[in-house]
Amino acid sequence: MGLFGGIEAGGTKFVCAVGTGPDDLRAVESIATTTPDETIERVAAFFRRQPEQPAAIGIGSFGPVDLMRGVITSTPKPGWRNTPLASRIRDLLGVPVAFDTDVNAAALAEHRWGAARGLDTFIYLTVGTGIGGGAMVGGKLLHGLIHPEMGHIRIPHDLARDPYMGTCPFHGDCLEGLAAGPALERRWGVRGSDLPPEHPAWALEAHYLALGLSSLVCTLSPERIILGGGVMQNDWLFPRVARELQAVLNGYVQAPQVLDQIDQYVVPPLLGGRAGVLGCIALGEGAL
Amino acid sequence: MGLFGGIEAGGTKFVCAVGTGPDDLRAVESIATTTPDETIERVAAFFRRQPEQPAAIGIGSFGPVDLMRGVITSTPKPGWRNTPLASRIRDLLGVPVAFDTDVNAAALAEHRWGAARGLDTFIYLTVGTGIGGGAMVGGKLLHGLIHPEMGHIRIPHDLARDPYMGTCPFHGDCLEGLAAGPALERRWGVRGSDLPPEHPAWALEAHYLALGLSSLVCTLSPERIILGGGVMQNDWLFPRVARELQAVLNGYVQAPQVLDQIDQYVVPPLLGGRAGVLGCIALGEGAL
Repeated sequence: MGLFGGIEAGGTKFVCAVGTGPDDLRAVESIATTTPDETIERVAAFFRRQPEQPAAIGIGSFGPVDLMRGVITSTPKPGWRNTPLASRIRDLLGVPVAFDTDVNAAALAEHRWGAARGLDTFIYLTVGTGIGGGAMVGGKLLHGLIHPEMGHIRIPHDLARDPYMGTCPFHGDCLEGLAAGPALERRWGVRGSDLPPEHPAWALEAHYLALGLSSLVCTLSPERIILGGGVMQNDWLFPRVARELQAVLNGYVQAPQVLDQIDQYVVPPLLGGRAGVLGCIALGEGAL
Repeated sequence: MGLFGGIEAGGTKFVCAVGTGPDDLRAVESIATTTPDETIERVAAFFRRQPEQPAAIGIGSFGPVDLMRGVITSTPKPGWRNTPLASRIRDLLGVPVAFDTDVNAAALAEHRWGAARGLDTFIYLTVGTGIGGGAMVGGKLLHGLIHPEMGHIRIPHDLARDPYMGTCPFHGDCLEGLAAGPALERRWGVRGSDLPPEHPAWALEAHYLALGLSSLVCTLSPERIILGGGVMQNDWLFPRVARELQAVLNGYVQAPQVLDQIDQYVVPPLLGGRAGVLGCIALGEGAL
């Protein structure tokens, strides 16, 4: 049935791979995100170099994107606004191309090979430079009008506890504005990775993430929540977010998964940092 | 193909009907919600009185509910906790019974006959004694782990503008706690229906609803939002909520429906107060 290609298109790097799944990744390469022309040409060169060409390619892209047209739309990333990524890859490589958000791709991979196997409705949320969410509902990736932008949900912000006004250029103190990596860094004056586990930054971070997750739980009723991204590399953060989520929900959602098994409810991606590009390979397979 | 029965099970009244759709409702009756035994017996009596018996019955219930078992679970409504509503109706009337939330039933009716015809992914939110949300995603009603409880999402609460702490016994100032009918009444000391359109209560109400809707938009990416319930009987509230939603989203969701056609994006139910019981009839049809 052949090989598939994956392109996890990020604002910092494009991760390209060919293979058929986590146990069969034949090549993986990271390409720095520079201009669209240069980046896309280097991506195409990666695939042309492979001994066996992929039968189709999946792209999981940073956004916002127009999924119907395969275009990166209103990104603040210089030069990338209105880039028709899907059609350019299709034209350069002459294979079918599937296009979705980076987080939906990661959700797809975790559903097929990772922490969401057998589930019908779940969320994959990445907490890093930004916050983004993908979701599967009823066994299908959630798209809707455009696509979810879960990082931009609003959460309560107690200015007495945290006077930092948030980083989001659109909303100030939305979830991403208060809890993504840059908010940690600007609020505390050091990079998140330099904040020790006992620093009060993390109690606040867990609280904000829990407030956001509680609204996601009350809206989508997921069977599980997978948290990826750079900030969640701190594995000791998981039990704190989970306990805080229980506290915020306060017994309202009467499901044993939330009440009694919260540590299996809020989990890291089983595929780790490879979830995104593996999901792109799965998207590629679906493009055929 | 026969008749179907619908039971819209509410905390104040049970609305029962037989028919096949909005143009063929043969009988509709409201029964006050008293004890489970008395209420269920009167519901059964309504159906037994009909000249033609329904081939199946759909129930759309207040909650929280266990959809798999057809049981009302942790309601604060006295006497109703752990009521196996679906099996009791099935046993009394001997027909197949489908069971869902009241708001999912309303969403189903609006999809089939109302304001969501042809849509794939949308939200039906009721704003009345409580706030509840149903949704269709990819053409199917959203269930997930339990079912959505959209009224309980958290929103920013500016205590300087509004010191009222909210009515929700679980969360205080969640969306329902700040914006359902009882919050209006307790905050201002008069019933919402007695607050004139120019009262500042309504600017605050529109703001809270818009904050909630913005998070729902960023999570589910609905193609349309239908707002029902007693509070939304005030039709002049729709344009205020819609404008405020645009202000809160602040241009981030780049869809013409949100940017340019907001008055067709946030709309009342076309079926009005009949959406719930008509949806139950549609659920009943699906039970066969």
